[in-house]
Amino acid sequence: MIRLNDHYFKLQASYLFADIGRRVAAYQAEHPQRDIIKLGIGDVTRALPDACVKAFHRAVDEMAADASFRGYGPEQGYAFLRERIAAEDFQARGADISADEIFVSDGAKCDTGNFLDILSADNRVGMPDPVYPVYVDTNVMAGHTGEFVDGRYQGLVYLEGGEANAFVPPPPEEALDLIYLCYPNNPTGAVIAREQLTRWVEYALAHKALILYDAAYAAFIRDERLPRSIYEIKEARKVAVEFRSFSKTAGFTGTRCAYTVVPRDCVAWTAAGEKKPLHALWTRRHTTKFNGVSYPVQRAAEAVYSTEGREQTRSLVSYYLENAGIIRAALGEMGFACIGGENSPYIWVDCGGDAWAFFDRLLERSGVVCTPGDGFGRCGRGHVRISAFNDRENVQTAMARMREAGF
Amino acid sequence: MIRLNDHYFKLQASYLFADIGRRVAAYQAEHPQRDIIKLGIGDVTRALPDACVKAFHRAVDEMAADASFRGYGPEQGYAFLRERIAAEDFQARGADISADEIFVSDGAKCDTGNFLDILSADNRVGMPDPVYPVYVDTNVMAGHTGEFVDGRYQGLVYLEGGEANAFVPPPPEEALDLIYLCYPNNPTGAVIAREQLTRWVEYALAHKALILYDAAYAAFIRDERLPRSIYEIKEARKVAVEFRSFSKTAGFTGTRCAYTVVPRDCVAWTAAGEKKPLHALWTRRHTTKFNGVSYPVQRAAEAVYSTEGREQTRSLVSYYLENAGIIRAALGEMGFACIGGENSPYIWVDCGGDAWAFFDRLLERSGVVCTPGDGFGRCGRGHVRISAFNDRENVQTAMARMREAGF
Repeated sequence: MIRLNDHYFKLQASYLFADIGRRVAAYQAEHPQRDIIKLGIGDVTRALPDACVKAFHRAVDEMAADASFRGYGPEQGYAFLRERIAAEDFQARGADISADEIFVSDGAKCDTGNFLDILSADNRVGMPDPVYPVYVDTNVMAGHTGEFVDGRYQGLVYLEGGEANAFVPPPPEEALDLIYLCYPNNPTGAVIAREQLTRWVEYALAHKALILYDAAYAAFIRDERLPRSIYEIKEARKVAVEFRSFSKTAGFTGTRCAYTVVPRDCVAWTAAGEKKPLHALWTRRHTTKFNGVSYPVQRAAEAVYSTEGREQTRSLVSYYLENAGIIRAALGEMGFACIGGENSPYIWVDCGGDAWAFFDRLLERSGVVCTPGDGFGRCGRGHVRISAFNDRENVQTAMARMREAGF
Repeated sequence: MIRLNDHYFKLQASYLFADIGRRVAAYQAEHPQRDIIKLGIGDVTRALPDACVKAFHRAVDEMAADASFRGYGPEQGYAFLRERIAAEDFQARGADISADEIFVSDGAKCDTGNFLDILSADNRVGMPDPVYPVYVDTNVMAGHTGEFVDGRYQGLVYLEGGEANAFVPPPPEEALDLIYLCYPNNPTGAVIAREQLTRWVEYALAHKALILYDAAYAAFIRDERLPRSIYEIKEARKVAVEFRSFSKTAGFTGTRCAYTVVPRDCVAWTAAGEKKPLHALWTRRHTTKFNGVSYPVQRAAEAVYSTEGREQTRSLVSYYLENAGIIRAALGEMGFACIGGENSPYIWVDCGGDAWAFFDRLLERSGVVCTPGDGFGRCGRGHVRISAFNDRENVQTAMARMREAGF
């Protein structure tokens, strides 16, 4: 009799976006003329940069002729892309990462989940709260947690964010083995200072822990004092794996290209206490269970590092950052306490009470959709996430409507 | 202290393609003028069909304008593609599969490995021999086997192929929970008759087992008596998941698009003995750990089902099938017993002795590369795989050289 992975039945149904959709649909049905503005979604809205489009077309043309056609590529990605990534995203910022430590993939979300494949179920996991729910769910699926009791999974250690620590939880007293960090943060938009990240690296070195560092929003960092990569911190190579994506950097959410960095001196231990490099295990996993990213997509991603590509992606990110600035300033004027929205596309708003009640009020009075913080964990209560991924006009209209409605 | 998944250390290093590469490089170094013909590789060589190229370009252009840009798509794939797949690959052949049972992905290899995520480690697994090594390795990684002892993993039940059963092993006497079947087969090129596949479906129904049916080479089936999909067999919906790919159908090995079929009435059991649909678990897995296939790639795949696309892919597959026919006829004339090469791009050759010795002889005398069967399991000994994925001229030259060398 074929048996299931029973851990899946510990998973809580995720009602967040379904609930949002239901409430929005009900409101739209009552107000068919109302133009609803969705500031709830973490998805880009603007076209691919021209440099990427041109490179994409050129590569499709290569696939159209026998002489230039490409079949299976290296699972880890083509050297032309890995070398640019290593040089521009790391070496140019003083981070000692080489091309053979880059694994090109089809998504940072996929990789954060897949990475658990090479780790034991026995690790003590430090999980931020609020948090991107995929980190939690993939741990549950892999059997790395206990049951869901009183709103939390047993076996996870929750690292609580709140106003007191500006939603950047510090390392705890107790020893953890595996820690998720995401900066600029989804959902809070918080960024981590070099000194704060250094404390985490020191903690990981002291406890022989591993940090999974999700830097999918690194392109939004404009403050040069802030680290864009964890490898800007000394000795982080030994204790951190970093996840990056072209999704938000260059509008690739529908095009799909990302990468994971596994430094050669990043290690973990067998049950027998032997130290082993993660690079070898991840190579085996990636080459056995993945076939590489589409060749034309890799060429489009490579174009991000061209002169035009760099200018165009910078301008794309600036557009969203300006949206974020408009939202943050408007909410500030309305008297809301916010974090994020600087060096980040997300604004995290203290809504002064129940987030779902605020959601309903915002929708009813202004026709604007946000994301209630409850969906990101217990510490998200009383907050909503507002996203800057939208057209300028929509953002301006949304803020004007909120002002008019007396928010 | 961060702990590893110790199961990875049971994995045997795969020396097959590394060994082949080393021997070929040594030979080339000694014979720098020799034009070596590689008939060892299972990768396509010819350009994408024109219909796919055109659709690919059109979709890239959509991504180039804000108004038609697409961000995140449905993780399971766009309806435009899922509906064509269901209608043309299944319903048109009398197989009752609907669009919401299709999960578009970036590779059949990835999916066969990922599917283990939703299954228990306790299942008794039936593994063909010879076999595509990924099925074995992903079971080892997931902890679904014991140690490697005397050339085989403990805990797996090997389904032995050989001349006696024409490399189509029948269901065993004992009860298995999970069975891998691959037809047309890689590496042997064997196909399964409707009656033989019916016996497997009946076996799975009787034992409440699940069949993972890899039909990545289905497009090579031209004999209308042969099933292209397991769902052409009555009640297979209840006991089978099928993996398909555009890789060999339309030359997508470097473009990346595939799909997995999980029928709604295909079930498995919890530890407590409750029956659950696999569809719900796979949906949760796919939406949590995957972000959908690149939008332009899905448009290119959709074009396979257009009138031109159908003609062009059929002609592409015919080209390789004609290569296979040439190889099979030539080897037959030379006196080799072969299977495959009809309804399949692979020819499985009884080389009458040690496969590595034959490999060396073939390389030395004719400058032709094949794949020794040992790399596919114990039952692959004494055989080599020859692939029809090459240019016609190379295939003809290779056969002429073999004849001249007295093979």
